[in-house]
Amino acid sequence: MSLEKFFNPESVAIVGASQTKGKVGYEILTNMVKAGFKGEIFPVNHKAKTIENLTCYPNLEAIGQTPDLVIIIIPAKFVASIMQECVKLGVKSVIIITAGFKEIGKEGQKLEQQITQIAKHGGIRVIGPNCLGVIAPSSNLNASFAGDLPKKGTIGYLSQSGALLAALLDIANAHGIGFSKLVSIGNKADIDELDLIEAFGKDPDTKVIAGYLENITDGNSFVEEAEKISHSKPIILIKSGSTAAGAKAASSHTGSLAGAETAYEAVFERSGVIRCNSIREQFDYAQAFANQPLPAGNSVVVITNAGGPGIMAADAIEKEGLTFAKLTNETRKKLADGLPPAANIHNPIDVLGDALADKYEFALDVALDDPNVDAVLVLLTPQAMTEAVGTAEAMAKILSKKSQKPVFASFIGANQVADAIDVLRSSGIPQYDSPESAVKTIRTMVDYVKWRGRPKRVIKLFPVNRRKVETIVERHLRNNIREVGETESKEILGAYGFIRPEGSVVSTAEQAANVAQQLGFPVVMKIWSPDILHKSDVGGVKVGLKNAQDVMDAFDLMMYRIPKKMPEADILGVLVQEMCRKGKEVILGMHRDPHFGPLMMFGMGGTMVEVLKDVSFYPAPLTAEEARQMLVNTKTYKILQGVRGEKGVDIDAIAEGLQRLSQLVTEFPQIQELDINPYVIGPKGTAAIAVDARMSVEKV
Amino acid sequence: MSLEKFFNPESVAIVGASQTKGKVGYEILTNMVKAGFKGEIFPVNHKAKTIENLTCYPNLEAIGQTPDLVIIIIPAKFVASIMQECVKLGVKSVIIITAGFKEIGKEGQKLEQQITQIAKHGGIRVIGPNCLGVIAPSSNLNASFAGDLPKKGTIGYLSQSGALLAALLDIANAHGIGFSKLVSIGNKADIDELDLIEAFGKDPDTKVIAGYLENITDGNSFVEEAEKISHSKPIILIKSGSTAAGAKAASSHTGSLAGAETAYEAVFERSGVIRCNSIREQFDYAQAFANQPLPAGNSVVVITNAGGPGIMAADAIEKEGLTFAKLTNETRKKLADGLPPAANIHNPIDVLGDALADKYEFALDVALDDPNVDAVLVLLTPQAMTEAVGTAEAMAKILSKKSQKPVFASFIGANQVADAIDVLRSSGIPQYDSPESAVKTIRTMVDYVKWRGRPKRVIKLFPVNRRKVETIVERHLRNNIREVGETESKEILGAYGFIRPEGSVVSTAEQAANVAQQLGFPVVMKIWSPDILHKSDVGGVKVGLKNAQDVMDAFDLMMYRIPKKMPEADILGVLVQEMCRKGKEVILGMHRDPHFGPLMMFGMGGTMVEVLKDVSFYPAPLTAEEARQMLVNTKTYKILQGVRGEKGVDIDAIAEGLQRLSQLVTEFPQIQELDINPYVIGPKGTAAIAVDARMSVEKV
Repeated sequence: MSLEKFFNPESVAIVGASQTKGKVGYEILTNMVKAGFKGEIFPVNHKAKTIENLTCYPNLEAIGQTPDLVIIIIPAKFVASIMQECVKLGVKSVIIITAGFKEIGKEGQKLEQQITQIAKHGGIRVIGPNCLGVIAPSSNLNASFAGDLPKKGTIGYLSQSGALLAALLDIANAHGIGFSKLVSIGNKADIDELDLIEAFGKDPDTKVIAGYLENITDGNSFVEEAEKISHSKPIILIKSGSTAAGAKAASSHTGSLAGAETAYEAVFERSGVIRCNSIREQFDYAQAFANQPLPAGNSVVVITNAGGPGIMAADAIEKEGLTFAKLTNETRKKLADGLPPAANIHNPIDVLGDALADKYEFALDVALDDPNVDAVLVLLTPQAMTEAVGTAEAMAKILSKKSQKPVFASFIGANQVADAIDVLRSSGIPQYDSPESAVKTIRTMVDYVKWRGRPKRVIKLFPVNRRKVETIVERHLRNNIREVGETESKEILGAYGFIRPEGSVVSTAEQAANVAQQLGFPVVMKIWSPDILHKSDVGGVKVGLKNAQDVMDAFDLMMYRIPKKMPEADILGVLVQEMCRKGKEVILGMHRDPHFGPLMMFGMGGTMVEVLKDVSFYPAPLTAEEARQMLVNTKTYKILQGVRGEKGVDIDAIAEGLQRLSQLVTEFPQIQELDINPYVIGPKGTAAIAVDARMSVEKV
Repeated sequence: MSLEKFFNPESVAIVGASQTKGKVGYEILTNMVKAGFKGEIFPVNHKAKTIENLTCYPNLEAIGQTPDLVIIIIPAKFVASIMQECVKLGVKSVIIITAGFKEIGKEGQKLEQQITQIAKHGGIRVIGPNCLGVIAPSSNLNASFAGDLPKKGTIGYLSQSGALLAALLDIANAHGIGFSKLVSIGNKADIDELDLIEAFGKDPDTKVIAGYLENITDGNSFVEEAEKISHSKPIILIKSGSTAAGAKAASSHTGSLAGAETAYEAVFERSGVIRCNSIREQFDYAQAFANQPLPAGNSVVVITNAGGPGIMAADAIEKEGLTFAKLTNETRKKLADGLPPAANIHNPIDVLGDALADKYEFALDVALDDPNVDAVLVLLTPQAMTEAVGTAEAMAKILSKKSQKPVFASFIGANQVADAIDVLRSSGIPQYDSPESAVKTIRTMVDYVKWRGRPKRVIKLFPVNRRKVETIVERHLRNNIREVGETESKEILGAYGFIRPEGSVVSTAEQAANVAQQLGFPVVMKIWSPDILHKSDVGGVKVGLKNAQDVMDAFDLMMYRIPKKMPEADILGVLVQEMCRKGKEVILGMHRDPHFGPLMMFGMGGTMVEVLKDVSFYPAPLTAEEARQMLVNTKTYKILQGVRGEKGVDIDAIAEGLQRLSQLVTEFPQIQELDINPYVIGPKGTAAIAVDARMSVEKV
């Protein structure tokens, strides 16, 4: 159902409208009037005849028509009965401003469930409760007590914190930043962030979607929808607070490495959501996306009237991994002809301290024509001769003719540049208080362009033995066994095309020696117990055993020592295994996030993984490209490629391993956590081996 | 010589004073007058009788007395003759505003040398040339064209960029930020950053030293002095641009790992200098240090009237590694008694959206009394009932009584909090536009306190065989050999107490087998050539050779393959060496920075070092504590301590190795670069072994 009537109603009823200044019911009514709302406003209050010259109605029915939108401000305990009235009258859109619901505890939660039920059965969509309301400048609608109606603009904003929305509106109004819509989503009893992101996605007035969120209601749908919408409109979010997942004790490597924020980071990366850490950063990004074209590449040219800020911009460009544009000979020649001899005609272009507006205009004009330039950053410090306003106007003039490349301004100062900044803002040129924030914004736009241009997602499906996995998983669930032991974990992996090392579990030293003889030396030995997850912690792993005597010694030592360390552990024997050919050890893993589902992990293997934390995460299912990118995102990648004379390993085999694992955990949602550690990988063309593996399953 | 007369002169002559508006000579004169300078002002201009009602003099001599300070604004080519006049008259302090010196190339450089000579011989101190001048609010001195005289304050500022200083002054004046002194240092022909930092260090009006620098003239003195001064006054610098050292091709590991900024990072860390990336950050820090006491610890409590910003502050506290203060039962009881039932009495203390000023006053008062609280961050969003100004006043009132702990404010918004922010600023309560910047500032203060509290620096001197090193170094220098080969590098290390593995260089396969027999298997073999620095890159290293046949095979393969790869290399044979006992491999290194001298390096060893870049740097000479801290600053440290059942290695042995190396490079400035890679280290109590080493020497 469309949310259209929330933003563009023809009639609005305010239940709980008040004539007492300072009361929310008064503030919202006067905000509606002040904003110049063109439709009808029906204050509902059985005590008053008129409020602010508007006829007042004792109840909704008395209005005599069905309002498009009803705003409810009366105390929580009365809200349900008004909702019933709404159902009766056929009202479809309701904003509940009233607080005192879920946020105050059990009693409030009950009230909230009650109104959600009524809404659901009555076909009513609800924003709130416990919110500041809705603002839509293009229809002169200020159905809120968040502040004054802002300028019309192209940013759609949703906020899970009302107070923050009010503060943000104050800042935006002071700086003349416009919005298409603003919504305070409150407790999200019905309409949540996803509904609004979808609505903003379809809204022709909205070019940029921004918001403040503390949690995400439906992680999976969010990822899916955000990914679609991000293609046409950037989604710029502040996400604060830690996820509940972080608090959950995790028994696997992957689980313990996945911090509270890992899932959010990974799914935002996948779905192209741009994350920011503060309102300032969000405004920095939003004003650029809302007003400037996207850069075609990452080459930036700086135009400045002073060396210092130019150097600071250059430092920032290097730090953010952007390219310092190399100007063509033609550009340099043009600059040399049009600027004074002392001017720097390389990047940064220094038009000199005494440059008037015409020099800036000239340099910007020339720089925009250079094919090596993707974005321009214009810096200005107010010096004796500087024409700040004139320079801003000149920039606007050039941009009205040349609008293919994004241009950014950092006019540094306060009173001396204030008027110029107003000109910049009203001309849609984003202004930053430091070169660093401007450059960071360019970097964010470049990343977004890169994300949009990534190859189409195609998930490869490998032929596997699904039936075998089903059998093992079902048996565990039937017997209420959460942890799948090493042998069966590896059987599952085998069914999905992973190669395992040969070996057997033995229960005497002599058996161990025999098995080792058959496998050929050297061998590896591992304690075999469902109760010992971290074998090396208890001395339960020996590698490189070269003869029968060493094998027998190792067996007896484990049997002697480990029961002392873990008297409660049920020890089934010792696994004697072929020693894997030499190769690099990596870890492949999966950790199922309660909100977002399976998160794949890749990192350096062995015991190093927990120390170095050189790992990357990405939500499953993975494409080949995404699996490869997971490798590239770690430092381990360089080691895998081969360092200083050493041959590289088979990168594709690791990526394929990740894809196979991704298929496994996608097809078996019962698998909660899974590690292959180590996954040993040799040179190109050799098979990778899943040396050790663990997983856990749960009923779903 | 004191710089006092630059800041508090009794008489000032302005050579090049002008009556033409817009000219620098006019701007400076009127700035002097406007600022209300109490001493005498002598405009010098042979064309005018009076300027701005001040008697004008045709030349300096005509004044009839020696002015305390002379400001020169006339064209560059005339400056030298005015300097001569100054010498004749006994002038001691000169500011040269004029540009057209070193910054324009060779010709200007000559002019600059000329005036520097005159100044030196005549006992004159010079600020500039090519600068904006000097400002000292406490003596109403505005000898600059940077802008209006700012408020009196406690921040001393120096800037290598005039334009940036002007922009900064504009911002400071708009926000009412005060200064003790501001100096535009221009080309630093005489007085440089160090002179000013020393002067500010002694200046009773200056509590905080801040500045913008593009380079540092004398690195060694800077480190030494900055370290002393940082103890009493924080030094907060923006350092932009890359060092020349970064461009210099580096042949050692350490050299290639030491990026352009490494030396600055390391010496700033050592000397307690606080580095920032933007003017905003610098103001953020400076206003806190200038107005608030230092925190005793890192526990922060947040007081807020809205959940959202409270969560954002909490996120930031976690991210910056600060502690979320755990309030005492007593505090919580007091808060519960004084705040409404719905208020959150844990950290963050939520006084609720309808809180008036009195609730904030109460909560701040109670929070400051809690022994678990080291710093308080007060957040305010403007809501319907909020008394922003009243809250700011209430905070000021509490702080006038309780001034032991630092308090920070983040009033979020614009027009609705503008007046309140003025109150905060005039009460010395630092205000931040986001909780994140406030928390980052607290973190910076906590780090500074930690730095100040670090143990006294005591450099241990080990007994060494200095004579032996002298002999080797001198022979290399005499013969113009820059690279010291492995054998002699290790002899040098031996003389400084390092233990080396046994071994010999051989020239036939049979000799190799014989030596290996004597050492005992397994052995290591390394190609022996002064021309091959990265042996493993060319297949010149074989480890773990277990018998005579393997040794002979390895010898022959090296002799066959390496000359093909490096036909120009002079191959002297192959080193056969005992295989080191198992242990962790680390790298110890030194790289001599052209500005700051020897920089010690520690990192993970072997080929991993270049990939993982898990390294730390610190300027020599090292104390035991500093050497240890270099280890702690890497992730490798955790591996060295022992991971998952593995025993840790002898950390002290590594720290001692770094100290011994630090002594070596301090006593031998001829050593330019040095690596011990790997330095193999076993469990506590075992000796560490310098397995491979390289160094280079140069005449000094």
